[in-house]
Amino acid sequence: MSLPQPGPMSLVPFVSVETMMQLILRRGLEPMLIDLAACIEEDFRRWEQFDKTPRIAAHSAEGVIELMPTSDGRSYGFKYVNGHPKNYQTGRQTVTAFGVLSDVETGYPVLLTEMTILTALRTAATSALVAKYLAPKGAKVMAMIGNGAQSEFQCLAFKAICGIDTVRLYDIDPEATAKAARNLQGKGLNVVSCVSGQEAIEGAQIITTCTADKQFATILTDNMVGAGVHINAIGGDCPGKTELHRDILTRSDIFVEFPPQTRIEGEIQQLPEDHPVTEFWQVVTGATPGRTGDRQITLFDSVGFATEDFSALRYLNDLIRKDASVQMLDLLADPDDPRDLFGMIERYGRASQPA
Amino acid sequence: MSLPQPGPMSLVPFVSVETMMQLILRRGLEPMLIDLAACIEEDFRRWEQFDKTPRIAAHSAEGVIELMPTSDGRSYGFKYVNGHPKNYQTGRQTVTAFGVLSDVETGYPVLLTEMTILTALRTAATSALVAKYLAPKGAKVMAMIGNGAQSEFQCLAFKAICGIDTVRLYDIDPEATAKAARNLQGKGLNVVSCVSGQEAIEGAQIITTCTADKQFATILTDNMVGAGVHINAIGGDCPGKTELHRDILTRSDIFVEFPPQTRIEGEIQQLPEDHPVTEFWQVVTGATPGRTGDRQITLFDSVGFATEDFSALRYLNDLIRKDASVQMLDLLADPDDPRDLFGMIERYGRASQPA
Repeated sequence: MSLPQPGPMSLVPFVSVETMMQLILRRGLEPMLIDLAACIEEDFRRWEQFDKTPRIAAHSAEGVIELMPTSDGRSYGFKYVNGHPKNYQTGRQTVTAFGVLSDVETGYPVLLTEMTILTALRTAATSALVAKYLAPKGAKVMAMIGNGAQSEFQCLAFKAICGIDTVRLYDIDPEATAKAARNLQGKGLNVVSCVSGQEAIEGAQIITTCTADKQFATILTDNMVGAGVHINAIGGDCPGKTELHRDILTRSDIFVEFPPQTRIEGEIQQLPEDHPVTEFWQVVTGATPGRTGDRQITLFDSVGFATEDFSALRYLNDLIRKDASVQMLDLLADPDDPRDLFGMIERYGRASQPA
Repeated sequence: MSLPQPGPMSLVPFVSVETMMQLILRRGLEPMLIDLAACIEEDFRRWEQFDKTPRIAAHSAEGVIELMPTSDGRSYGFKYVNGHPKNYQTGRQTVTAFGVLSDVETGYPVLLTEMTILTALRTAATSALVAKYLAPKGAKVMAMIGNGAQSEFQCLAFKAICGIDTVRLYDIDPEATAKAARNLQGKGLNVVSCVSGQEAIEGAQIITTCTADKQFATILTDNMVGAGVHINAIGGDCPGKTELHRDILTRSDIFVEFPPQTRIEGEIQQLPEDHPVTEFWQVVTGATPGRTGDRQITLFDSVGFATEDFSALRYLNDLIRKDASVQMLDLLADPDDPRDLFGMIERYGRASQPA
């Protein structure tokens, strides 16, 4: 008697880390960042269709574990993501993630995927998309402060989506800068390694900060930032973790993803609850202007929002439907009679006994 | 050049549906239910150590998708679960689930598992555990109303944990009753198939209701329920979904898992916000008495709480550490240098090119 095989409804496609790398290499990193930015833009444009809630965070002394669900009424997606700044000391990632996309009509998952790499991609695509709307026209130079796991993705997204041709790298750890500079060689960018944040921002029209300390830090002080720049602040993303001096915030026009979440987690946790901010989706729909003047400082106070992960999940889901090489996981019980879960175990037991 | 293999930190043990069935068959269903009830009891006893929050629900016309996180400060667990009453029409489960256990210190997942079967087990173990504290002494007969996917697990948990020797089955669909009766043959229970709810509860000291309609239903009316019984109401578990007539509630002493969730989802959504209920964990610690008299009606208004899934996840995690046959999933990116996620993809690309 042969063992019952998992039925088709029990199987969920799984994108492993290795599969994700294959998909990126096949499509090309920059084309994929452009694709992702287009999906993210589309979903910001239909922002009002989404169920939105601040992510559900479990904080501990060492870091945070978060669940980020959202739904457009047809699909439901969520991401599990952690942030543990000390993880690199044990050879681990500061941020790891995985995600699931489901069908709202049945509640059945249709995709399980690694999202450590995918989060780096969607974060970079979002940053560059926002800068496309807010950065000074003709911006060519970006300062990249913080040269960790996200930095190269950020640099290439700004190249592919905003036309940046020069990146000026700085990290408190020169080895991180050396690593990023090495990785960016031959990618069509002028790469300048700098020894201070001050040096990195010289001549930059865009300043990206992406550092990981879980504490109030001041990566940029007020006197460092001149008029007419766009700041892309992505490192400050949980309570007590910020990167910018408060005075920069009060001089800037601040754009955010979802205010209820950004008030808790973003740079603006340093400001009063009622400090005015603009929701980025309204810039995309044209309801609100983006950049209005040459000397304006625009600040994207990015914390990462569930709809961006949703966009990435639905993009990936479309991509793998064209790709037969994805592993299938026996994740869902699928008895012949849906009410006979018990009988399924019994039958499996009888079939697995020696004849 | 050979392809880089996933590093040890990238791999997460995965318990598939098939593996779960093997684990149950190896341990035996009843011993596993007893083990689970012990873990759940232990965690109710240390209730105050847990981070607790009502589950995060995404409702649609067809059903609900929920995330249920909790943490004891050392481990973090969450379950994804859906409830879609119409799913059986397309051969799907009403409830499917999967879950993850993580290490709070690093945020890294340590276990991914199917939880459709495991939820049926933990729900049955919880029901029987509660009845052990609340049902009349010497109870031998249980009415089992609703004979769907959960019913056999409930019956066997009450046999193994409470000493029930007779179950009286009823379902609106006689085929469901026939299925449950067939599955329970030779399991050491007297099984009586009934043609009405009224008949099913004759002589029963415990009444379990487990039906799936997503609407206010009245499985039990007031005149059906006599003094001195314990009611285990597990089907009413989301807003607008209840099983018992309001008048039964007002005659009962009501025990719940986590009041903020039960007020939204349980039978008590029919009652005023301030109607008194007892938290079951306080019965376990001895802070509050359970059953206090022979004629008392005790009611467990069960909706299923995250700590019960946590108990099941930690039990399973211990179990598989002794079992080498678990599949490992390449779920987490693990570059040699944790800050070099980008370089990992590049190196993989170079290694996978033909020499």
